[in-house]
Amino acid sequence: MITRHDRVAVDLPMPSGPNANGAAAVQELLGGKFGEMSTLMNYTFQSMNFRGRDAAHARPFYDLIANIAAEEYGHIELVTYTINLLLTGTSTRGTDPAAEPLAGVENNRNTHHFIASGQTALPMDSMGRPWTGDNVFSSGNLKLDLLHNFFLECGARANKIRVYETTDDPTVRAMTGYLLVRGGVHVVAYARALEVLTGADLSKLFPIPDISNKAFPEAKVLEDQGLHLILYRNNPKDYARVGEVFKGPHPEDGQPLVVEDGLPDGVAPPLLEEEPQLTAPGIGAIDDEMLREIMKRLER
Amino acid sequence: MITRHDRVAVDLPMPSGPNANGAAAVQELLGGKFGEMSTLMNYTFQSMNFRGRDAAHARPFYDLIANIAAEEYGHIELVTYTINLLLTGTSTRGTDPAAEPLAGVENNRNTHHFIASGQTALPMDSMGRPWTGDNVFSSGNLKLDLLHNFFLECGARANKIRVYETTDDPTVRAMTGYLLVRGGVHVVAYARALEVLTGADLSKLFPIPDISNKAFPEAKVLEDQGLHLILYRNNPKDYARVGEVFKGPHPEDGQPLVVEDGLPDGVAPPLLEEEPQLTAPGIGAIDDEMLREIMKRLER
Amino acid sequence: MITRHDRVAVDLPMPSGPNANGAAAVQELLGGKFGEMSTLMNYTFQSMNFRGRDAAHARPFYDLIANIAAEEYGHIELVTYTINLLLTGTSTRGTDPAAEPLAGVENNRNTHHFIASGQTALPMDSMGRPWTGDNVFSSGNLKLDLLHNFFLECGARANKIRVYETTDDPTVRAMTGYLLVRGGVHVVAYARALEVLTGADLSKLFPIPDISNKAFPEAKVLEDQGLHLILYRNNPKDYARVGEVFKGPHPEDGQPLVVEDGLPDGVAPPLLEEEPQLTAPGIGAIDDEMLREIMKRLER
Amino acid sequence: MITRHDRVAVDLPMPSGPNANGAAAVQELLGGKFGEMSTLMNYTFQSMNFRGRDAAHARPFYDLIANIAAEEYGHIELVTYTINLLLTGTSTRGTDPAAEPLAGVENNRNTHHFIASGQTALPMDSMGRPWTGDNVFSSGNLKLDLLHNFFLECGARANKIRVYETTDDPTVRAMTGYLLVRGGVHVVAYARALEVLTGADLSKLFPIPDISNKAFPEAKVLEDQGLHLILYRNNPKDYARVGEVFKGPHPEDGQPLVVEDGLPDGVAPPLLEEEPQLTAPGIGAIDDEMLREIMKRLER
Amino acid sequence: MITRHDRVAVDLPMPSGPNANGAAAVQELLGGKFGEMSTLMNYTFQSMNFRGRDAAHARPFYDLIANIAAEEYGHIELVTYTINLLLTGTSTRGTDPAAEPLAGVENNRNTHHFIASGQTALPMDSMGRPWTGDNVFSSGNLKLDLLHNFFLECGARANKIRVYETTDDPTVRAMTGYLLVRGGVHVVAYARALEVLTGADLSKLFPIPDISNKAFPEAKVLEDQGLHLILYRNNPKDYARVGEVFKGPHPEDGQPLVVEDGLPDGVAPPLLEEEPQLTAPGIGAIDDEMLREIMKRLER
Amino acid sequence: MITRHDRVAVDLPMPSGPNANGAAAVQELLGGKFGEMSTLMNYTFQSMNFRGRDAAHARPFYDLIANIAAEEYGHIELVTYTINLLLTGTSTRGTDPAAEPLAGVENNRNTHHFIASGQTALPMDSMGRPWTGDNVFSSGNLKLDLLHNFFLECGARANKIRVYETTDDPTVRAMTGYLLVRGGVHVVAYARALEVLTGADLSKLFPIPDISNKAFPEAKVLEDQGLHLILYRNNPKDYARVGEVFKGPHPEDGQPLVVEDGLPDGVAPPLLEEEPQLTAPGIGAIDDEMLREIMKRLER
Repeated sequence: MITRHDRVAVDLPMPSGPNANGAAAVQELLGGKFGEMSTLMNYTFQSMNFRGRDAAHARPFYDLIANIAAEEYGHIELVTYTINLLLTGTSTRGTDPAAEPLAGVENNRNTHHFIASGQTALPMDSMGRPWTGDNVFSSGNLKLDLLHNFFLECGARANKIRVYETTDDPTVRAMTGYLLVRGGVHVVAYARALEVLTGADLSKLFPIPDISNKAFPEAKVLEDQGLHLILYRNNPKDYARVGEVFKGPHPEDGQPLVVEDGLPDGVAPPLLEEEPQLTAPGIGAIDDEMLREIMKRLER
Repeated sequence: MITRHDRVAVDLPMPSGPNANGAAAVQELLGGKFGEMSTLMNYTFQSMNFRGRDAAHARPFYDLIANIAAEEYGHIELVTYTINLLLTGTSTRGTDPAAEPLAGVENNRNTHHFIASGQTALPMDSMGRPWTGDNVFSSGNLKLDLLHNFFLECGARANKIRVYETTDDPTVRAMTGYLLVRGGVHVVAYARALEVLTGADLSKLFPIPDISNKAFPEAKVLEDQGLHLILYRNNPKDYARVGEVFKGPHPEDGQPLVVEDGLPDGVAPPLLEEEPQLTAPGIGAIDDEMLREIMKRLER
Repeated sequence: MITRHDRVAVDLPMPSGPNANGAAAVQELLGGKFGEMSTLMNYTFQSMNFRGRDAAHARPFYDLIANIAAEEYGHIELVTYTINLLLTGTSTRGTDPAAEPLAGVENNRNTHHFIASGQTALPMDSMGRPWTGDNVFSSGNLKLDLLHNFFLECGARANKIRVYETTDDPTVRAMTGYLLVRGGVHVVAYARALEVLTGADLSKLFPIPDISNKAFPEAKVLEDQGLHLILYRNNPKDYARVGEVFKGPHPEDGQPLVVEDGLPDGVAPPLLEEEPQLTAPGIGAIDDEMLREIMKRLER
Repeated sequence: MITRHDRVAVDLPMPSGPNANGAAAVQELLGGKFGEMSTLMNYTFQSMNFRGRDAAHARPFYDLIANIAAEEYGHIELVTYTINLLLTGTSTRGTDPAAEPLAGVENNRNTHHFIASGQTALPMDSMGRPWTGDNVFSSGNLKLDLLHNFFLECGARANKIRVYETTDDPTVRAMTGYLLVRGGVHVVAYARALEVLTGADLSKLFPIPDISNKAFPEAKVLEDQGLHLILYRNNPKDYARVGEVFKGPHPEDGQPLVVEDGLPDGVAPPLLEEEPQLTAPGIGAIDDEMLREIMKRLER
Repeated sequence: MITRHDRVAVDLPMPSGPNANGAAAVQELLGGKFGEMSTLMNYTFQSMNFRGRDAAHARPFYDLIANIAAEEYGHIELVTYTINLLLTGTSTRGTDPAAEPLAGVENNRNTHHFIASGQTALPMDSMGRPWTGDNVFSSGNLKLDLLHNFFLECGARANKIRVYETTDDPTVRAMTGYLLVRGGVHVVAYARALEVLTGADLSKLFPIPDISNKAFPEAKVLEDQGLHLILYRNNPKDYARVGEVFKGPHPEDGQPLVVEDGLPDGVAPPLLEEEPQLTAPGIGAIDDEMLREIMKRLER
Repeated sequence: MITRHDRVAVDLPMPSGPNANGAAAVQELLGGKFGEMSTLMNYTFQSMNFRGRDAAHARPFYDLIANIAAEEYGHIELVTYTINLLLTGTSTRGTDPAAEPLAGVENNRNTHHFIASGQTALPMDSMGRPWTGDNVFSSGNLKLDLLHNFFLECGARANKIRVYETTDDPTVRAMTGYLLVRGGVHVVAYARALEVLTGADLSKLFPIPDISNKAFPEAKVLEDQGLHLILYRNNPKDYARVGEVFKGPHPEDGQPLVVEDGLPDGVAPPLLEEEPQLTAPGIGAIDDEMLREIMKRLER
């Protein structure tokens, strides 16, 4: 079970302007094979499926995977809100359908943002293909699952880098910068888990791909604050033993890894303006009387 | 963001025995079009995508959808653990691959439970087809989204009924009985939301399909305790106004609907035994020395 | 069985010009989840699958679903011809492949219109993804199927509205205007069916989404003629009892619903010019002698 | 547009008994790549997409394709009713869900027949995979489309043969026997169309695969009556010129091909019994009072 | 088993410039339903699956299919290298991710070329949809499989023609010109196989679609050299009897068909420049010291 | 380009008997996410897509990937022939379709083996889902691609182990035993490549999953002969430098890795008997005269 908080992990700046194709590209980080839906669902299923977790030698690995799964939920939020902010204002606001409020939408790469949704995100990739459960790997063998997760996070890292490189939009850069750092923690976490499990030293593999987070200004500023060293212990009581795996020096800069209890503070989710031409949300859309009646029924 | 709890909503009894095809059938309730992945993801995306939610007349609807999304996370756990328990022991335990420990698996309906996973659940349906993001509907229009959700919950109810009817296994029945009741609350919640939004009275539509939860012994016992009347306010501070929508009499038995703060108590997740023939989890599988070394590295 | 007529339901004006991306967008109304392929196939399968239809209380519902299915066939025609007209002339006519007749096609959103088809429609959506049988819902429970259909028509209505809003092209507007009205009849029909079945009054739910057909000039002119009140009894003898369900006042304007026997008059399908650069149709393409020989073989 | 008739093309005998896996296998002929959904939709789209059809030398080909499309609608009915009859009675009838009415369903190959539908057909193949618009080929080039159709019908013929060979069930055999004959007419029709178009003589290719319809008793009896020689001119006025293509001797037995106006007589669709354990249709399921009220509302 | 050669069949000229959307369109010829992945895999599976091939009358057909399969491997190379050359230089080279090296990529039709791959091909079509095993037809019946192959090659020919027509880019034209000729040989080969098998004369069907290869300058020059007459006997010893099928006059120009032993000479594959902004390949990307160490480890 | 040899890598014993469901399970190793289609296509695309391969430090990695790709072609053959042998004789041979030669097929897990193919393999997995190009990963970053390949081979190893464990059939065991050894070489090869590229030591990760090849009798006998130490240099001239990467001690038993020039000797492919009830291959099926005519046309 979860307790959901009406807060997102980091404060996203406003976009430099509406950007429909930018939003379409960012979808890769949400619903792509290496998007946040994949990290969320891989670790969620691996944790629910973890056999033999009650053994003393197994529990820290379970705690780690379950704990990272919890953080990923916050990541689908960040990517989704980035997409939603980019899509805000990408068509002409108004209530007259005959005024062509969606003129030009037919030339956007992702028409589903306008036809299927109300200028908001959907669980699909940058080609508009839906996320699929095929993206979940859960073999039951811990070593293989950890290797998968290490690879998945490296692949996710490559995607974030490349989406970052498409744009100077501040929202996209803030989001990818943050996720490069937090995803970077997960790369390290899974490498450490493999190391603790097998005794191998994977530190020379870093970074994958061959470019440091420090090369990304929005990531560098966060790493300068040490955000790449911290694993948030989502629920200190329930996932108590993550620190038995997540420990030692960071493979890239050698600073000590740290476990911190609780969630990041976060902020309230960004405001999403109405798009009346899409009747989104359309509450009381036809006339004011309707709205008054809704209020009355709410207050009753 | 979420806080994840290492507890599941209800105590699942042990299955009457290993049952691979039973597990395959239950997958419908996890990864089918009307499975819990769908309810979880529909409401999660609708809440993140809710435009204009800051308006006074909109917020209670946002709170309701966000809040129900949070409960659905607990439902994917229940279905997943049911599948995992059914699959436990469905092959022969042992470490000698030449002893044919998976003999007979080729005749099971879902071979991926054994080849792709470690006798555990995956996000797919009862035909082994993966859950897809196409199952998420998020039009941005509140009335249409609520109508969708009302339909989705009714469709989900039909699937639970039918899976229930396949078996007398206590785990499956306890799980479906519980979900019929809790899903029933969501049917009511979305009907009430449509009623508050439009003034229509949908109570005569109940129940869909045309059979009462009371006909299911495992559901009836819970309804006798009033569980069908309660909406858990997942996070009382953040989703404060759900009660402005979820109120009034239950459409079927006329008892007053209630909002209750916090999560159900829940219990620790069921223990999942190791399946060594699948090296699940395979920690220290080759010899005891390995295991000792792992322990040493954990304790370091 | 069907008798097919070489006529389409309404006279489509010519487009303001060739428009490849416009055609790509309109595909949503043909092969999208809420497109006419979905309405056609849902009702066709539900009618073929209707158990117990021979009971007196069931037959009017069967007649209604079967009858609406028949009308939907005419709707896939209208959307298809709209797409075909928009695609006509979108490349350069000619028989010399070296003259780059398809120059620029690589920048169109839907390349399959040019590579897979002869500048004509295919059963796919506005993202170029094929229609799928997964879009068919046929649970066997009448109430649930009717609720689905009511939702499906409302979702289809939202899509038509949004495609309408993308353009001032006369063909697209005439087609969507007509389908908003006819689809509107189906929304009413399924609401009435639910009402007759359960006694609930759904009229306050209208319209979904929250915008009236009267806001669309091309729809308004048809509603002024009362087209939104008429259910065409496709085959008066075979689906005789539709009027036991489709009756009473229209939920939006209160005018009496009417059953009218037979099909709309319709008109001959629009002419589709040849596109020789695609050898569409390519009959006798290589030289005139070929054409003469074909004629001879036809006349033999 | 179409006029739909509440009749099916041929009288199907009752199955020798309920047969869930038999029904699952027959799905191939409905929603498989070479199933009737494919023939119906290929020819429907090719006819709507036919460019330059108004030319004198083109029209007979258009008429042929449009006309065969119309017959295929009747074929999806026959396969669907066969499946529905096979599924009738495959679970235990009753209204008590706790009595395990669907016991054993978990071992059936197609669980969606019971969970997603009410023991009836869905547009999927024998592996439970949905029919897809990818199965539609419509290149716009007449010769290529005809070659495709010739191949499609031969592939469909192979599938019918193989499904026939799985069983001695009278319903399946009657249906496949009939469709082998009628599909055989379509093989001939497309071969003749290619011959008229190009002058090639394809008769030596027959039969594909290398087995005659006469080897199937249920087909032979129909061929003895000459049913393999007749093309039904679905709408004599609108598709007047089919006979300019469909003419000459049958390639296998040399008898003259014939065009016959109108549809086969057909019979009323088979009765499909209720399956109350699936609330299919569930009209008035809870009590008799409900039923009386429905009747009252119908009669009002 | 195969011996792989580091050579491609024909020398591709450099593109007139980087062309991301051009590359996206060419993908149809690689991963489309009628792309080279399909021809390769259809014939590969048909050859491995060929039952009864050891019979004297069967072996020449087996040899033919197996032999053509081998040539198709070279065709996926040619299409892939064309795509890779077109994508080379489509973004800004450099190592600073903050310099927006991928600016504008969000407007390209295929974002996966930049996010999922390193500006190179993937097995997908021009709409970005992955190639699927559903494209493989292998019925086991030789006549039906040959008919399929004949149709597949004609469909592939249509696609090549249409992609050719989109552009005057020299790489695309050289590639499509070459493949039109070589694919043309395969059309003839499968027609001849059907003729030898059945005695039918298919020569009047040519060409499909109705335009000659000679109309394409880059194909004509190759046909003037007789390349359309030659079947390369990939492995003279192992597929010795192809000439018993591939013989007689070419159906279009009447020149004698020829079997030639061995592969075309071919040339070294084109050089593909590095794209450092995608860390492709990223070897020693961080600093020179890394590169020296790699060299040392290689030489060790 | 390739030269194809009509030989398979290893001599497969005959199965202990026909086994349709066994064949269905083995499909996972052919068309599953981790099947041989995936290894073949991943490395083939990665090699064609390798940017900067002409640099001295890059070429050995290119040679390695290209070379392993070539071996994988031989592996799809082995899995395919295993499936084909298992399917041989799974229905009743004969030419009378009315004798129910396919009786019981409706209860087999994979009906496409009988309806779509002639009791032979298709590129699908053990759930009957087609292989997809989505399974190809080719990021362009060498380190990431190598990590992917290392993971892919470990995942493939897990699948082979589990399929092995389902059966004591000699064909399946011989095939999986051989592929465990050869796939094991590829695991080592990609680990070595990562080590040479980065300097990391991955040997302690072995084996993944946690069970040695020596535990499989059919693999052990081959490892005793040293087959797990040999990389076959498929084309010594063209992929000359593989030995700069594939060298050093085997990570599990410490024996020296070896590069051997050329292919394994291999043997002729297994004979596949005809299945006349499926007209596979159906050459001259109708009567002997046909067969004589075919022979005449071949010899002409």
